[in-house]
Amino acid sequence: MTPLTVIKVGGAVVEQPDTLAALLDRFATIPTPKVLVHGGGRTATHLATRLGLETQMVAGRRVTDEQMLRVVTMVYGGLVNKTIVAQLQARGQQALGLTGADLDTLRSHRRPPRDIGGQTVDYGYVGDIDQANGRALADLISLGITPVIAPLTHDGHGQLLNTNADTIAAATARGLAPYHDITLTYCFERAGVLRDSGDETSVIPHIRPADFERLTADGTINGGMIPKIQAAFDALRGGVRQVVITHAGHLGDPTAGTHITL
Amino acid sequence: MTPLTVIKVGGAVVEQPDTLAALLDRFATIPTPKVLVHGGGRTATHLATRLGLETQMVAGRRVTDEQMLRVVTMVYGGLVNKTIVAQLQARGQQALGLTGADLDTLRSHRRPPRDIGGQTVDYGYVGDIDQANGRALADLISLGITPVIAPLTHDGHGQLLNTNADTIAAATARGLAPYHDITLTYCFERAGVLRDSGDETSVIPHIRPADFERLTADGTINGGMIPKIQAAFDALRGGVRQVVITHAGHLGDPTAGTHITL
Repeated sequence: MTPLTVIKVGGAVVEQPDTLAALLDRFATIPTPKVLVHGGGRTATHLATRLGLETQMVAGRRVTDEQMLRVVTMVYGGLVNKTIVAQLQARGQQALGLTGADLDTLRSHRRPPRDIGGQTVDYGYVGDIDQANGRALADLISLGITPVIAPLTHDGHGQLLNTNADTIAAATARGLAPYHDITLTYCFERAGVLRDSGDETSVIPHIRPADFERLTADGTINGGMIPKIQAAFDALRGGVRQVVITHAGHLGDPTAGTHITL
Repeated sequence: MTPLTVIKVGGAVVEQPDTLAALLDRFATIPTPKVLVHGGGRTATHLATRLGLETQMVAGRRVTDEQMLRVVTMVYGGLVNKTIVAQLQARGQQALGLTGADLDTLRSHRRPPRDIGGQTVDYGYVGDIDQANGRALADLISLGITPVIAPLTHDGHGQLLNTNADTIAAATARGLAPYHDITLTYCFERAGVLRDSGDETSVIPHIRPADFERLTADGTINGGMIPKIQAAFDALRGGVRQVVITHAGHLGDPTAGTHITL
């Protein structure tokens, strides 16, 4: 199978013109087929504030009422997505912006209210993914198209749903695994998974399940990095070959960052 | 060649949930391949007002500075486009939302400042179309995909540009004419081109160039309808088989509205 890279880039990188341009320069040079999944949360929060809407986050996820759904649909599906698509076209990439509703690529259901810390939380119009349409994406990719995916899904009954971009990237990677040899890369502002959170040179180059057990037991890996790496292992068990966690500035450097494999 | 319908629907129809639902019900029943081009100007003006931005229209076109471009990118490319796509998916249509930047479908250049009524008007980030990529659209359509096009184009150098939806519909129809037998339908709130603007039953069923000359000479056709019909003749000379101007409520009824042919 031919290699394919699914790259997830967080909000901070894609929401500033200079870091976005640098990222897209690097992205465009990746020679294999590729998919870009982006965020946009800071811009959404900023627009919500300008519209007098309060942003409420619970356990790192945005509570999404009807007004907030309009905001994220505008920001993720419109502003951020189309800005990236236009700039990739300028770099000779045949980019196509998608939400999960487009070509039914990502089907989800509205997350039921759940108990978090003893309180019942209704996230509103937030979707948990049921299915990524890997066939539709693989067909596009076989035509030389580079999908650019916004963190929005749909329920198949006409409802758009706000969906976490990390989760979309993992679901997209799994959906494409039957058709390609997949590397899933999470880009962020750190050099990788660090031994010492204060030292950007302390990147752990390779994590396998046994390493993960040891590094969580001794406290080296902790906090929000634990679910991220668990999600990486889920993707690997779903057929993804490797997951890389790296700095956005090192995108395309195969030796950089932390490589997670089974 | 197989028939294909390009349908342009104005803002008022797509921006109200009840008229949008009725429109999409009718659109989904059209048995031939089809393309939907939509507006969204009222929602853009409303959002701009909420953000404290002044909307300036000159000769019916929106002056688009950087802030207004962000607004129309959010509203046209995000909110209106993705709402339509999700609702078409719920009706079993394999819809795909596009701006002109996606797959390089509509390339334009920024309109130079022009003299209007003795004043130099700079429309800002407004695009005049150079080229519709009919091949890319025809390829999508051959896969059973229904393109849903927002009124945004790009210049190929990374710049999105606000572009009139009527013009996009005509350019898209012309671009597809080498591949399909095209009917271009403009839906609006009137029953068609009327003999008597106060009488919705006075629809002129058929207009050919000689009729147009006669009806403009005697004043039956006047005002904004003149450039619309001239654009229709341009589309016909570009290979489009017929242009229909009709009420959104009559979409899919082949006998309704005004049919314009060479």
